[in-house]
Amino acid sequence: MRTGIATVCLSGTLKEKMQACAIAGFDGIEIFEQDLVTSPLSPEDIRKTAADLGLGLDLYQPFRDFDSVPPELLKENLRRAAAKFELMSRLGMDTVLVCSNVATAEIDDDGLRAEQLGRLAQLAGEHGVKVAYEALAWGKYVNDYEHAHRLVQMVDHPNLGTCLDSFHILSRDWDTAPIEAFDAEKIFFVQVADAPKLSMDVLSWSRHYRVFPGEGQFELAKFMGHIVRAGYAGPVSLEIFNDVFRQSDVERTAIDAMRSLIWLEEQSAKWLDANSANGNDGAGSASAGSPAKAPGRRRYPMELATLPKVAEPAGFNFAEVKADDTAGLEKLLSQLGFAFEGRHRTKDVQLWSMGQARVIINEQAASHAEPAIAALGFDVDNPVIASARAQQLKAPVVPRKVQADEEVFQGIAAPDSTEIFLCQGSPDGTAAWTHEFGDGLAASSGTGAVIDHVNLAQPWQHFDEAVLFYTSALALEPAPFAEVPSPTGLVRSQVMQTSDRAVRLVLNLAPLIQQEQDGRDAHHKSYQEHIAFAVDDLVATARAAKDRGLDFLQIPANYYEDLAARFYMEPGFLATLKELNLLYDRDSSGEFLHFYTATVGSVFFEMVERRGGYDGYGAPNAPVRHAVQYDSLHPDHARR
Amino acid sequence: MRTGIATVCLSGTLKEKMQACAIAGFDGIEIFEQDLVTSPLSPEDIRKTAADLGLGLDLYQPFRDFDSVPPELLKENLRRAAAKFELMSRLGMDTVLVCSNVATAEIDDDGLRAEQLGRLAQLAGEHGVKVAYEALAWGKYVNDYEHAHRLVQMVDHPNLGTCLDSFHILSRDWDTAPIEAFDAEKIFFVQVADAPKLSMDVLSWSRHYRVFPGEGQFELAKFMGHIVRAGYAGPVSLEIFNDVFRQSDVERTAIDAMRSLIWLEEQSAKWLDANSANGNDGAGSASAGSPAKAPGRRRYPMELATLPKVAEPAGFNFAEVKADDTAGLEKLLSQLGFAFEGRHRTKDVQLWSMGQARVIINEQAASHAEPAIAALGFDVDNPVIASARAQQLKAPVVPRKVQADEEVFQGIAAPDSTEIFLCQGSPDGTAAWTHEFGDGLAASSGTGAVIDHVNLAQPWQHFDEAVLFYTSALALEPAPFAEVPSPTGLVRSQVMQTSDRAVRLVLNLAPLIQQEQDGRDAHHKSYQEHIAFAVDDLVATARAAKDRGLDFLQIPANYYEDLAARFYMEPGFLATLKELNLLYDRDSSGEFLHFYTATVGSVFFEMVERRGGYDGYGAPNAPVRHAVQYDSLHPDHARR
Repeated sequence: MRTGIATVCLSGTLKEKMQACAIAGFDGIEIFEQDLVTSPLSPEDIRKTAADLGLGLDLYQPFRDFDSVPPELLKENLRRAAAKFELMSRLGMDTVLVCSNVATAEIDDDGLRAEQLGRLAQLAGEHGVKVAYEALAWGKYVNDYEHAHRLVQMVDHPNLGTCLDSFHILSRDWDTAPIEAFDAEKIFFVQVADAPKLSMDVLSWSRHYRVFPGEGQFELAKFMGHIVRAGYAGPVSLEIFNDVFRQSDVERTAIDAMRSLIWLEEQSAKWLDANSANGNDGAGSASAGSPAKAPGRRRYPMELATLPKVAEPAGFNFAEVKADDTAGLEKLLSQLGFAFEGRHRTKDVQLWSMGQARVIINEQAASHAEPAIAALGFDVDNPVIASARAQQLKAPVVPRKVQADEEVFQGIAAPDSTEIFLCQGSPDGTAAWTHEFGDGLAASSGTGAVIDHVNLAQPWQHFDEAVLFYTSALALEPAPFAEVPSPTGLVRSQVMQTSDRAVRLVLNLAPLIQQEQDGRDAHHKSYQEHIAFAVDDLVATARAAKDRGLDFLQIPANYYEDLAARFYMEPGFLATLKELNLLYDRDSSGEFLHFYTATVGSVFFEMVERRGGYDGYGAPNAPVRHAVQYDSLHPDHARR
Repeated sequence: MRTGIATVCLSGTLKEKMQACAIAGFDGIEIFEQDLVTSPLSPEDIRKTAADLGLGLDLYQPFRDFDSVPPELLKENLRRAAAKFELMSRLGMDTVLVCSNVATAEIDDDGLRAEQLGRLAQLAGEHGVKVAYEALAWGKYVNDYEHAHRLVQMVDHPNLGTCLDSFHILSRDWDTAPIEAFDAEKIFFVQVADAPKLSMDVLSWSRHYRVFPGEGQFELAKFMGHIVRAGYAGPVSLEIFNDVFRQSDVERTAIDAMRSLIWLEEQSAKWLDANSANGNDGAGSASAGSPAKAPGRRRYPMELATLPKVAEPAGFNFAEVKADDTAGLEKLLSQLGFAFEGRHRTKDVQLWSMGQARVIINEQAASHAEPAIAALGFDVDNPVIASARAQQLKAPVVPRKVQADEEVFQGIAAPDSTEIFLCQGSPDGTAAWTHEFGDGLAASSGTGAVIDHVNLAQPWQHFDEAVLFYTSALALEPAPFAEVPSPTGLVRSQVMQTSDRAVRLVLNLAPLIQQEQDGRDAHHKSYQEHIAFAVDDLVATARAAKDRGLDFLQIPANYYEDLAARFYMEPGFLATLKELNLLYDRDSSGEFLHFYTATVGSVFFEMVERRGGYDGYGAPNAPVRHAVQYDSLHPDHARR
């Protein structure tokens, strides 16, 4: 698949954008006109820069408001077009995007439109330019991709084809299957964009909220499948208008973009395989009688590269917290009932465990660094294959010093810089590397305990990137996102999980004001992250922790009154909840009990008990937690 | 008018919110249930705190999903209600907001609904509670305020009335005139919210984008007018769900909120006066034959306070820039053709002028402070009245040291901390205070020159606040906002202007990434602000400035090629534009020529020439300016 990206997706100058695209490994780019107009580089300089960087200049865009106009305006539009075609020849470019008219269209007549597009194709031919005509979702008369294609067929000129943009097609909920019947020669260009499903006017949605494939909710693999089956083999290029990407570091965004296309390529191949097996492909020959044989994918002009395959992780292997002074962490874990399993034989790290829940306390932190979550280990079938996949998806590798006879962890860095280690899982939930630790002090309680979920705060610039990272590199599935009120604003919460819920990762986007404050004080984060452990008997766990003097997050009495108003509750049970600072939730599938510890640095811990099929995280209780944590940061109700 | 605000509008803990409301001068508050549930204060503590602060507890809210349910759920809902009514009695509160059912409504039958609301009213009566029933815009069966009112009439119980919320009514574009026929006794509460006109689902619009009155586009004065005419005299309370307000400083947001109600009170009185004069009031007696007599407003139970009246400002009196090292500013102004008029006799400030455009250079800046726009003077009819109005609108007063015989400037601080001075205008555009300056060096050129517009960068937390500030305190009108692409993101641009365009102020909301960077480096702002001067002959001005060695913002050659493609242009004129780095725009009403200087600190200057009725700011050229300015900050195309 030939990969591309429009310069409008990225921040910075045209030159910075081109460099970032080359580093990320794109085959070509679309030059967005405004980036050229505002650049000090001459067209000849741009052509040379692209050649030096090994980047194709695949599309010049956009040329607007051409068709469906009265004769005098047509003349002016052809003059405009000629000027741009000359510019393209200086750039060495041969394809231009022409959008269906929004602003100046006056005559709704396909015959006239075809005649006008024919004049344009004729002029383009004289300049050696190919016109890719695209139906904008909000085009005045032409806003449907099949309509644009019909016009192209009517004109039937070698220099006129169509451009298919997934946003303009999927935002209108149009069926994509008809693409397969298109003549591939007439598909001049393909642009892909994903987007969250939003109910708003399509123009604003398009201009601000597009995201890279895998970061939204469009069925892009299917869209691409139809295009591949049509026989198209040209560039597949990202055109993403997104307020955040426009502000983010250009090289990083380009890598995120490239990752999305690599992932889309794999997903498209999977879609073709799956639909070939169902006979939808019209070419697959796998009969129902030979299930052992993988369904063969027909060969199409577009070659789709594949990635090393991984299954979703089987569980958390460990969580690692890091601090200069680790005393607070040790105290909390010990009070929760974790056993100190000893120190590593070559590194300054401790191992603490409760059942299969393992926490590494890393003492190799910078001076004065407050406790923070540093790394997560995941159990995978084959760490080497999983690591190869992640690296092909451009995940940065984490260097790790290893001594002889020690287990080698395959590590990659998540977008928020949490280190993700791909570990060899074992069926019984144990981990071989624990033998590298010396003898500890105490036996662990809570044999059934596991890591239930981990909650990581995300910087706003990298939230969408994180969703794609965990989806593509770790095979987690995003759940619908939620928003939780806190005293400093709404917290956006995105659950990433496996189908069996053995891994649950919660990505929280803290309010901007908190992130600004964090930026000014590197040693103290006002947002907090946590690790939650599941146990079989939360009341017993809480009571034991209380006896050991644990500093619980104190839940206000008003909460328990509200609980009693909301649910029918046994008075004795309610009294126990209140006594132990336990929170409670209930839904049609089960119950959820949980409590939180006080915070050290930016880390706190949660203990949970899931009863029945309860699958959530106690969302109605989240505002209580946020408010109490905020309150404990502002103990005197000081005027801010 | 009794003023109120819902605690959900503000950030922080309940106690912090209550303190901020008291400081801002609200009469009462609405307790949002979640703020109570998450608070460590007991209901009795909250009651006492409110009493100590002199705040009424006017509404407990919300009680959800009550009506239109099957019998077994009704029983559970009444149990829930009884628990809340008991809580309200501990709080000493007597009014509760009950929203129309969204989630659990199953039976669409007004008879049943009236019966169920009657049961609720009965129970409320036993607890001394009044139920204000509100139709949510997205209520399952009841989503129209007239429908809610009909149900209240059907029940006809003294403890059941309705709550009118401007968002739920105006977001659905419902006519507000029928409110006048309502029995005022049955209007238990009024909530006001403004909002920008957005095309999105009404729930998301409501939850994230409400703003304070005067910051959006709803016709709130008319809405209030109908309510006043109905005879309602209860609280008018703000209920604003807004992502930014939830994150902003609580005391500051409370002041902004209070300002919006003071302004709304005045606007409502004006609407009543205007519509009484037209005979719409049904009570006004001003006949067409006595135009000299102000139309009399009928006396209504709700008293509407008024403010000192001001007309829109007649023009800019001066602009003030401040720096530790002022050499760069002096050089730019001198090269532009400004004359140095001398130094102030008692202060370390210089006066520079060109025609009626006056720039004060203030040397009393902090050590190493880079040049920045510090103050703007506006010509008003009566500075004392204008200042009184601004202060009643809670604008902070700027202290100003004044010597004997010097003109006293009435100064207030804008939300971005720019100092706004209200100056005595003169018909000939001169300013009396210039006599306080010593003799300068040179005579000014450009006798027709004036300040055309000033462009101020706004912090994201205070953008809406700034719109209301300039609307209410300075009588400027907001124009529809625009968005301009820049290399670091979209810049939101909001023009505030007078009807004759003598004053044009442009508020720019810089991309967040820039604001974050600014926060980390107090001495260097990556965003820029500017002052634009209008002259009669821009080409001559530019040529003279070029001869004096002015450092023009360098416009890329690509811009002029694009200009030639977009417009038909005389080749000689195009060559002149290119030679002098002039930018050009044209629309149906006229033409616009302009150029920019290089930037010193965070300030640059613009010179403009308006031809014909051109009323804009060269918006198509703004991306060019942003890109070139960005480029000059990153001269080596360094990897960021």
